[in-house]
Amino acid sequence: MMHPRYAVLELLFTGPVEPIPTDRVPLTVAFEHESGRTRLVPGFWDGGDRYLARFTPEHEGRWTWATISDVDELSGVAGIIDVGGPVMGEHGPVRVAGTFHFAHDDGTPFRPVGATVYNWLHQPHGRFVETVASLVDAGFNKLRFLVFPQAGGYVEHFPELLPFARGSDGRYDISRPVIEFFRRLDDAVVLLQSRGIQADVLIFNAYDNGRFGLEGLTEAEDAAYLRYLAARLSAFPNVWWSLCNEFDILDRPTERWDAAGELLAAIDPHQHLRSIHNWVRFYNHNQPWVTHASIQLGQATEDFGRASLFRDAYLKPIVFDEIKYEGDIPERWGRLTGQELVHQFWIATVSGCYASHGESFALGGGSLHIVEGGRLTGQSPARLGFLRGLLDNVNGVGLDPIDNWWDAGFVAGIPRGIYFQYLGRSAPETWTFRLPQDGMGIELRAGDRFQVDVIDTWNMTVETVETIFELTDVDKNEAFAAGTNPVMLPAGEALALRIRRVS
Amino acid sequence: MMHPRYAVLELLFTGPVEPIPTDRVPLTVAFEHESGRTRLVPGFWDGGDRYLARFTPEHEGRWTWATISDVDELSGVAGIIDVGGPVMGEHGPVRVAGTFHFAHDDGTPFRPVGATVYNWLHQPHGRFVETVASLVDAGFNKLRFLVFPQAGGYVEHFPELLPFARGSDGRYDISRPVIEFFRRLDDAVVLLQSRGIQADVLIFNAYDNGRFGLEGLTEAEDAAYLRYLAARLSAFPNVWWSLCNEFDILDRPTERWDAAGELLAAIDPHQHLRSIHNWVRFYNHNQPWVTHASIQLGQATEDFGRASLFRDAYLKPIVFDEIKYEGDIPERWGRLTGQELVHQFWIATVSGCYASHGESFALGGGSLHIVEGGRLTGQSPARLGFLRGLLDNVNGVGLDPIDNWWDAGFVAGIPRGIYFQYLGRSAPETWTFRLPQDGMGIELRAGDRFQVDVIDTWNMTVETVETIFELTDVDKNEAFAAGTNPVMLPAGEALALRIRRVS
Repeated sequence: MMHPRYAVLELLFTGPVEPIPTDRVPLTVAFEHESGRTRLVPGFWDGGDRYLARFTPEHEGRWTWATISDVDELSGVAGIIDVGGPVMGEHGPVRVAGTFHFAHDDGTPFRPVGATVYNWLHQPHGRFVETVASLVDAGFNKLRFLVFPQAGGYVEHFPELLPFARGSDGRYDISRPVIEFFRRLDDAVVLLQSRGIQADVLIFNAYDNGRFGLEGLTEAEDAAYLRYLAARLSAFPNVWWSLCNEFDILDRPTERWDAAGELLAAIDPHQHLRSIHNWVRFYNHNQPWVTHASIQLGQATEDFGRASLFRDAYLKPIVFDEIKYEGDIPERWGRLTGQELVHQFWIATVSGCYASHGESFALGGGSLHIVEGGRLTGQSPARLGFLRGLLDNVNGVGLDPIDNWWDAGFVAGIPRGIYFQYLGRSAPETWTFRLPQDGMGIELRAGDRFQVDVIDTWNMTVETVETIFELTDVDKNEAFAAGTNPVMLPAGEALALRIRRVS
Repeated sequence: MMHPRYAVLELLFTGPVEPIPTDRVPLTVAFEHESGRTRLVPGFWDGGDRYLARFTPEHEGRWTWATISDVDELSGVAGIIDVGGPVMGEHGPVRVAGTFHFAHDDGTPFRPVGATVYNWLHQPHGRFVETVASLVDAGFNKLRFLVFPQAGGYVEHFPELLPFARGSDGRYDISRPVIEFFRRLDDAVVLLQSRGIQADVLIFNAYDNGRFGLEGLTEAEDAAYLRYLAARLSAFPNVWWSLCNEFDILDRPTERWDAAGELLAAIDPHQHLRSIHNWVRFYNHNQPWVTHASIQLGQATEDFGRASLFRDAYLKPIVFDEIKYEGDIPERWGRLTGQELVHQFWIATVSGCYASHGESFALGGGSLHIVEGGRLTGQSPARLGFLRGLLDNVNGVGLDPIDNWWDAGFVAGIPRGIYFQYLGRSAPETWTFRLPQDGMGIELRAGDRFQVDVIDTWNMTVETVETIFELTDVDKNEAFAAGTNPVMLPAGEALALRIRRVS
């Protein structure tokens, strides 16, 4: 029987019941593909005498495997797996593509339109499931959530299920993960995968506030947890790693985060995306372990010309994983209108970047959607789903700012292919056809013909302009279609233009 | 007799006339201060049998020194220097201070207001001297210029004096620097020092365009030149190193630039500031050898809220060493109005960054001031000198954006000390007193009292508002002075406000 490419293969072994010290991996499974490629997959304890190793093959054909372990019972087991084509719709883990963008392992582009529910894992089952259903309805394709539970402002529900057993001294015993906790985490990731949502896993937690004591683990304990988590979750294709949300809230030396990130890069056999997210002090995202910059800066997507600067600085994909939230609470980070939040997503888009959504309307119970989830009630999610649909229809890896040095028109696109120009929250009455030259090698030519769609970003309509625009005047920096009339626009609306080359 | 602190000490030795291979340093002088501090200073060949070592002591007291060399004649020479207080007005080399700013070695703040004359070194003497006089008149305190001569567009004057002798094969012989060339370079740096101008030395040249062949040196030859240049110039207190202007014009792997930067950091005994400047592809300024980011991005200083993002990304001083030029040539990088250029300097200032000026009016001879210098004729220099005067009067290391996460008021300053708010090129009729909270530890308090100056950035006036503004309403993010009238402004002018705490 063939195992599908990109499907999780789980191998079960029987081993010692007594804990294996946390500085030792219980077993490693060496996989070798018929091409000679090898992959070392760490196994992990799954309670009692159960040990698992999970592997997701990215290549079709025959794989042989054998275990390596200090423990006799777990050593020297071997087998063969024949891998065939993927299950329909499965494209494999998301990777960086085209420097600034993302694509699945099979090359299918992925454009994150993310959501945020920090304490999702720790909610009652009904709310947990309802959250996902609501995200799917809206069209979100990524979710940021915490492994460790949250405490502090707006947190009203606290879990009893915690990740580690406590020793006789009352401290967490990292060598004894609570299997029920981690199986719940497995299920959460699998549920998201089944609904087409990437799991952006927040590994460490800056919001413990002393309640659970999980921010008080030593660096060695953190490392042991990280090894366990990576061994357990790495095989799930939809995993993204985020070391921490607002890492700089915690009073830790930056070197500790660097070391954790480098460890993660070293031990993850499936090499998922890796990032870390800031509060007010930025992390050095130029470090090799960081695959993409996950940024918070309130103002960066409020106006044109800002967000793309981080592309220049980091030469990696930029994801604004917090751009303030749609809501009505007093705190200034939680009271965007739906219009403002949608505007920021469009700014991020024409800056060649990505963003995440969050909702912070005061709920009856005193909590917020970004904390506990449930059904989304804001006005932005439908508009973000609409935006995602437009992005999914782009033929190419992603939109890059065109002529960003000059900043002429806030246009992003694929040179000589497709362009998006966002006109802001209050469009003018007319728009005269003009395209900037990219200046990086692919030049517009006289005679190129374009069709223009007027996109109402709020009312979610797309209207194609009847005129075909043919380039007549093409210079080093810009191109025009002389003799065409200005496009009449519904002035004052939040509009974008999609400009497609048709011949 | 005492040698002044921060003054160049030059030691002369007699050695072999035949070239010493370029992979060997002819001699090193080991300096040891009475405190135990040591400094290894490379010597260099200065023609014939002359070998020099130059050292600028940063500490008062007794220094002993001794030479180390493979060459017998240059080995084992020793001496003593007693160093006293500096000559009046001499503050030592400029260093990074307060993460984002600069100060001389003695702690005196330095706020770069830079000028750019690429081919200055290679001009006839009259023009060479006139250029400096004009820069001094305008108030510039830094000059970017090339060591190697420039060719290409707008270059009308080509030097005969080149940096290296040619071997019998017609190739440059890097082991034989042309001493007359490098003495001219010494004199240029000293002239700038005597006029209070930092010498921002562009070490390699992306504008050779094949004319001189100096862009065709091998990596080993480049390294030999770099060692010679560093040995020769390092002792001059006013040196800044810039590896290249628009480095990415040259088709070289980034690793070659990384290696050159790391070499420079390793061999410069006086540890001057080090940077590299880009055209359209950014360098990774997070690397340790880079002391400050030297950036070109046309749009970054055109509007509020952009430039400061590079501070977040690099956590180093940001200098926009090209923001387009004041001029009237057809190319879009060379036709800013004076108003536009001054506006960009003010944007850089309230973004907590620095910028450089350049002038590109078409000159009679077909060249530009940014190429050959001469007398400045634009409208911006006087306004930049005015700005520099304001910056020089700030008591503190430099201006940092206040509450940059929120981007409320485009205010930079020193929390609870002094604030600058730039109102843009067309001020409103009134301004109501308001200050943002920094949120990083130093909080405004009710009862704090402020005086406000209205600065006309173009007409170069400063008018103090009579009212004393006393804070009444101070919340987490902002502070107000209830009961005070709005400040009446000359609407439409390019204004800034300086808000000083007086008690």
